[in-house]
Amino acid sequence: MKKKVVLAYSGGLDTSFCAVYLTRELGLEVHTVIVNSGGFSEEELAAIEQRAYELGSTRHEVIDVTERFYQQCLRYLIFGNILKNDTYPLSVSAERMFQSLALAEYAREHRADYIAHGSTGAGNDQVRFDVAFSVIAPNTEIITPIRDLKLSRQAEIDFLNQHGFEMSWEKAKYSINKGIWGTSVGGVETLTSHQALPESAYPTQLSATEPVSIEITFEKGEPVALNGETMNPVALIQALNELAGQYAIGRDTHVGDTILGIKGRVGFEAPAPLILLKAHHLLEKHTSSRWQLLHKDYVANWYGTLLHEAQYLDPVMRDFEAFLESSQERVSGTVFVTLKSYQFELLGVESPFDMMQSKVATYGEENDAWDGRDAKGFIKIFSNQLKIHSSFNPSPTPPQKGGA
Amino acid sequence: MKKKVVLAYSGGLDTSFCAVYLTRELGLEVHTVIVNSGGFSEEELAAIEQRAYELGSTRHEVIDVTERFYQQCLRYLIFGNILKNDTYPLSVSAERMFQSLALAEYAREHRADYIAHGSTGAGNDQVRFDVAFSVIAPNTEIITPIRDLKLSRQAEIDFLNQHGFEMSWEKAKYSINKGIWGTSVGGVETLTSHQALPESAYPTQLSATEPVSIEITFEKGEPVALNGETMNPVALIQALNELAGQYAIGRDTHVGDTILGIKGRVGFEAPAPLILLKAHHLLEKHTSSRWQLLHKDYVANWYGTLLHEAQYLDPVMRDFEAFLESSQERVSGTVFVTLKSYQFELLGVESPFDMMQSKVATYGEENDAWDGRDAKGFIKIFSNQLKIHSSFNPSPTPPQKGGA
Amino acid sequence: MKKKVVLAYSGGLDTSFCAVYLTRELGLEVHTVIVNSGGFSEEELAAIEQRAYELGSTRHEVIDVTERFYQQCLRYLIFGNILKNDTYPLSVSAERMFQSLALAEYAREHRADYIAHGSTGAGNDQVRFDVAFSVIAPNTEIITPIRDLKLSRQAEIDFLNQHGFEMSWEKAKYSINKGIWGTSVGGVETLTSHQALPESAYPTQLSATEPVSIEITFEKGEPVALNGETMNPVALIQALNELAGQYAIGRDTHVGDTILGIKGRVGFEAPAPLILLKAHHLLEKHTSSRWQLLHKDYVANWYGTLLHEAQYLDPVMRDFEAFLESSQERVSGTVFVTLKSYQFELLGVESPFDMMQSKVATYGEENDAWDGRDAKGFIKIFSNQLKIHSSFNPSPTPPQKGGA
Amino acid sequence: MKKKVVLAYSGGLDTSFCAVYLTRELGLEVHTVIVNSGGFSEEELAAIEQRAYELGSTRHEVIDVTERFYQQCLRYLIFGNILKNDTYPLSVSAERMFQSLALAEYAREHRADYIAHGSTGAGNDQVRFDVAFSVIAPNTEIITPIRDLKLSRQAEIDFLNQHGFEMSWEKAKYSINKGIWGTSVGGVETLTSHQALPESAYPTQLSATEPVSIEITFEKGEPVALNGETMNPVALIQALNELAGQYAIGRDTHVGDTILGIKGRVGFEAPAPLILLKAHHLLEKHTSSRWQLLHKDYVANWYGTLLHEAQYLDPVMRDFEAFLESSQERVSGTVFVTLKSYQFELLGVESPFDMMQSKVATYGEENDAWDGRDAKGFIKIFSNQLKIHSSFNPSPTPPQKGGA
Repeated sequence: MKKKVVLAYSGGLDTSFCAVYLTRELGLEVHTVIVNSGGFSEEELAAIEQRAYELGSTRHEVIDVTERFYQQCLRYLIFGNILKNDTYPLSVSAERMFQSLALAEYAREHRADYIAHGSTGAGNDQVRFDVAFSVIAPNTEIITPIRDLKLSRQAEIDFLNQHGFEMSWEKAKYSINKGIWGTSVGGVETLTSHQALPESAYPTQLSATEPVSIEITFEKGEPVALNGETMNPVALIQALNELAGQYAIGRDTHVGDTILGIKGRVGFEAPAPLILLKAHHLLEKHTSSRWQLLHKDYVANWYGTLLHEAQYLDPVMRDFEAFLESSQERVSGTVFVTLKSYQFELLGVESPFDMMQSKVATYGEENDAWDGRDAKGFIKIFSNQLKIHSSFNPSPTPPQKGGA
Repeated sequence: MKKKVVLAYSGGLDTSFCAVYLTRELGLEVHTVIVNSGGFSEEELAAIEQRAYELGSTRHEVIDVTERFYQQCLRYLIFGNILKNDTYPLSVSAERMFQSLALAEYAREHRADYIAHGSTGAGNDQVRFDVAFSVIAPNTEIITPIRDLKLSRQAEIDFLNQHGFEMSWEKAKYSINKGIWGTSVGGVETLTSHQALPESAYPTQLSATEPVSIEITFEKGEPVALNGETMNPVALIQALNELAGQYAIGRDTHVGDTILGIKGRVGFEAPAPLILLKAHHLLEKHTSSRWQLLHKDYVANWYGTLLHEAQYLDPVMRDFEAFLESSQERVSGTVFVTLKSYQFELLGVESPFDMMQSKVATYGEENDAWDGRDAKGFIKIFSNQLKIHSSFNPSPTPPQKGGA
Repeated sequence: MKKKVVLAYSGGLDTSFCAVYLTRELGLEVHTVIVNSGGFSEEELAAIEQRAYELGSTRHEVIDVTERFYQQCLRYLIFGNILKNDTYPLSVSAERMFQSLALAEYAREHRADYIAHGSTGAGNDQVRFDVAFSVIAPNTEIITPIRDLKLSRQAEIDFLNQHGFEMSWEKAKYSINKGIWGTSVGGVETLTSHQALPESAYPTQLSATEPVSIEITFEKGEPVALNGETMNPVALIQALNELAGQYAIGRDTHVGDTILGIKGRVGFEAPAPLILLKAHHLLEKHTSSRWQLLHKDYVANWYGTLLHEAQYLDPVMRDFEAFLESSQERVSGTVFVTLKSYQFELLGVESPFDMMQSKVATYGEENDAWDGRDAKGFIKIFSNQLKIHSSFNPSPTPPQKGGA
Repeated sequence: MKKKVVLAYSGGLDTSFCAVYLTRELGLEVHTVIVNSGGFSEEELAAIEQRAYELGSTRHEVIDVTERFYQQCLRYLIFGNILKNDTYPLSVSAERMFQSLALAEYAREHRADYIAHGSTGAGNDQVRFDVAFSVIAPNTEIITPIRDLKLSRQAEIDFLNQHGFEMSWEKAKYSINKGIWGTSVGGVETLTSHQALPESAYPTQLSATEPVSIEITFEKGEPVALNGETMNPVALIQALNELAGQYAIGRDTHVGDTILGIKGRVGFEAPAPLILLKAHHLLEKHTSSRWQLLHKDYVANWYGTLLHEAQYLDPVMRDFEAFLESSQERVSGTVFVTLKSYQFELLGVESPFDMMQSKVATYGEENDAWDGRDAKGFIKIFSNQLKIHSSFNPSPTPPQKGGA
């Protein structure tokens, strides 16, 4: 009986090569599996399935993890307002992790002998795959033909041709990865440090210019309604991507550190993520305590960093999630946003927990909560340590270190 | 002989009231002092001086701290890419601190018996004044007529009229505070939580629409040239404010915590700060190590927070500055930026220390620094702890906590 | 009808003065309330009750919060291994907060018109009382006779005598505050910076010298058994205090920052807290991931700091608690400890989740998890960023900054 | 001409095997280099040199880095009060890094073709060697016979015998690594999780029991005098090790994470480090601001972690060092310590910058810096945010999350 291999299959040249290589060269029974986390349409999935079977797949499986991806990951990214290096919503980093987990679980459940992916030895994806596979399915051996054989693109095409697969594999100018939490765009300019992607490189083109105002409602930190219409968060993200994509909102270029220690650069468009993260953050500024805002920054920065670096399975991630979930207790209300070409404006919020509109005290006004005498006492004691510290100076002057 | 009071004088109603009150009611010799940190023009300063003498000032002094403000504060804000709550460049928070320090030093040098400011008991400014005064000039008593007397605006005007000062004190719709690091705009909409400031509320109006590309050169983190022309950083900031202000860049509304524990909201325009902070940050992403980027976030967040909260004199601020200064060793290079209406785009950077363009290894490509076998070994060991941790699970599954 | 005041009553001179002052001078109906968080014996409570009634209390109430104190606070201090400034288990800081909360709730439930405490204006306790009272019982006015009247000790005694209370109020050499989480000892030497408390100042004296080995069992971070005997954690803490107190374990002197900005110094003995915190920490080192250990330090340091500074009611404390609770998932097992005179030794642990005893790989030995070739690959890639960073140096040398 | 290899030589079996293997099997010219960071005596060094030449070394070099080790590393460990996981002074972690750096520089200077070390593929040391070698001497290839050949101890001895080296290589019960910053002890019990090392396993035995009081003087954070006698810090550490070693002070067992992701356990004795770190910390509590103490914890924890994990060359370490250095501005004064058998007691400090002894305000006393009215105002405003937050609760109660 043939041994069974689960192959992470995307329909592209590399994984197509793998499908044939595993079948013909290694004599394995290949199960092609594609994990959809919101980036593939029905048509795309059907075309991929057809190709998989053509190439010799014994069984092709589509696993949809979109809802789980939201429940176990995206909501925490929203809770944390997480943009890696203040820029990137971790579109691919997060998605690839959840694809890897689903593949590993599939392999374990189906008692596969091997599990294969088509990544090279150069980038982050191999790490996410290998980590998830070796932790979730520790007894299943990992096969990585592309990484091991280091074939050129042409060599892969030649191999496929030799085995009778004369498909067309024209190389796209940009490498695109589409997902619910953003579409990445790499190539040409992103390989330099000084050039921006041209307008035309982005999959979604500007098609609306008339500004429109929308309302996003959050409940305990989760987006639950768009313009007053209650929606499942996944549906809301998709609808908002659709709408804001027309305004070409959420484009940027990210420069960051790969897990392997080198710097990489990638363009992306992520309309819904950018709007949701900024709207959510604004709501938090109205409803969270100063200490929550400060410490959330720490937790969120680390949650994003470790997620990016394939550490999603570390137990500290569950601890961070517990913190983030707790912090959302009162992050409920509606945020008003105007969409314009290439940008959006946050107008304001409305929330039953808006600390700016408390009866206790109001900003900029004399109020009943305290008077000038209280303020004097406050500042006097507030200054105590600085006064003590300064009292040792023979002639207390402000610091000169920084200046001339 | 009359006792001497140094009054922080701005020319507005509150401090004008103070000038007359201190002279006439308290019988003091009033020294009016205005500290310019880049927000006042020569004409404005002359008008303020004239009014000061009209109101009875014995001596009027203009102290220009702009250069010092840059050297001892703004450069660290740039080093740290500091936007409070990811939004606000700390325009007023930083400026008021340096005005307070200069006033306190003046009072100490001139052996003033008293030092006075016109703040109410409601907001942050009183804290910055009181803290600086009591630490730098501990033997000079602080007088705060507005805070103590709690007079209405009309009562102040009546008082001035009674003493023969029939000036016009029409109340502006918005309260404006102009400085080199941004102009704040408060009133009407900012007192609500849900409304944005109208276009017309911003002092600087859109006057250029044709996109223009500029180059900003940094050396060890400091902006030193604009479009190839070497400039003093202060002059560069001013030139960039001028240029980018025409594009109405850098507008936003900040919601944050006051030192007194309540939430406040303020609009601002800060074209140069926003562009410089984002351009600088991009350059850092290319030239700083992963660990530097991560830990700078912590340091910068706290530096901004404590500066905002009138803790500039705490010695930890010098420690943070030492960290930030050290981190800028290689943050040198040029950043390419396009200015457009209401927004700007970072195109990329050029730097001799650009880690993305190293000979050692290049992103996305097979390279000589390591091969697939190395990568396998790396990931194997990289996964060790997760594998150990997971090995205690009877059936290792990914975390279910977050999901259904 | 007389107005009702709830008085935080301890039986000491200050609160006895308050009882009489509130009754006789202010004509209030006084409810004396003492909150026991584990520091008072039945006899002490009975004596205090008797005195309360003698002094004119209308109703005396003993509220025992020990169990709640453990559930809502102490367990988190254990989870976080929290020693303020690496020394102090927050004995009084934590206890006073929970006493204040119970008093405030009592006042609210009983619709008291006033709530009173006997603290001066000099220290931390007034902050804990005032904060809890004003947040939990915002409509109940706070009365603080000692803080307001600034009477000397003798004046208080005279006042009591005048009202016919001729009790003996001899001043103890040291001020002692006994609680389940430690007993503080202040006075004489602790007012200096250079002297240690003498042996005799400690309430518990050395009475056992023969070393004894004990076993403490934790389940999800909580101490649940002593020497194999299952106990309620409160009972366990009390038993361990009893046992280890005989060895004079857990004595030290803490120097720290008060909420008011000045430095204070206090001696303490806290046998059970010290042993439990260190034993728990050791167990965590065996069962928690590297990332958990690192980030727990951050969370724990802040949890302790904010608890000390009367910020227990800030919602961020609930977020920290959620993090800490989550982190204890696998902190189960037994810790072996030897008690000796003045010190204890941690021998080791036994845990089903001990990551040191995993089958995956074992420290210091060649193993199957990886080989030398893997290690080479790991380190090669692990060094990537340092190599890139260093490649810009004309002649890469180690940093000279720190040296000569 | 033979190619040249620099071998990190310690005189032990593994590196002796390497010396012969490199000479005889690989035909290389071997330069044996031993880097002394304070752990070797003159006699030991002479014996090692003799053996090196016997085994075929062409040139034997002793590099003393003790002073540099102190200047570029140990002083920062003192500034940061750094104990890894609150226990381990990083004795070996730090020392091995500096030995590796010196070896790499020697190899670069002498244009060696190869550089070799005798570590296995199992532990941390290989990482420190490989990282330093590949960063400092990127063009010198690394040879690691022990890691590559995976020979048993007996196989190594056989190989040496075959080549005519019939030395005695009896295996010690414990593996000892002696250095100025502590001596590690591994074996037998440390391979378990539950056993402590026996008294006899420690190289330094208890020889003094009569308590003795000593004074350690720090200047800007560095130890500069012992009992009033000014000393170079290196000499002071050595003298204190000598003295306190007689009391068997500073013994403990550390459990921690290796760079390779597994847990390891090691015993150690480090009398001077433990005393200096704790004495220094106490002095800081008296002389540093609350904010400094808090943020130093963060910086120190990371400095220690990254040093342990072979990241000393990352530029962020220079940034941390700048922070730490700045923080020591006022950490000057004398600390009084009593040494006893197996333990020491910190009595107190004396410092011109002792914030507890300031004229501004004194702990526990009514003072002139503020009065009860000020305190009331302070607390009122200090409670603002909690009151606002709580005002949204229909019935504000303390958190129930943690409790029953």
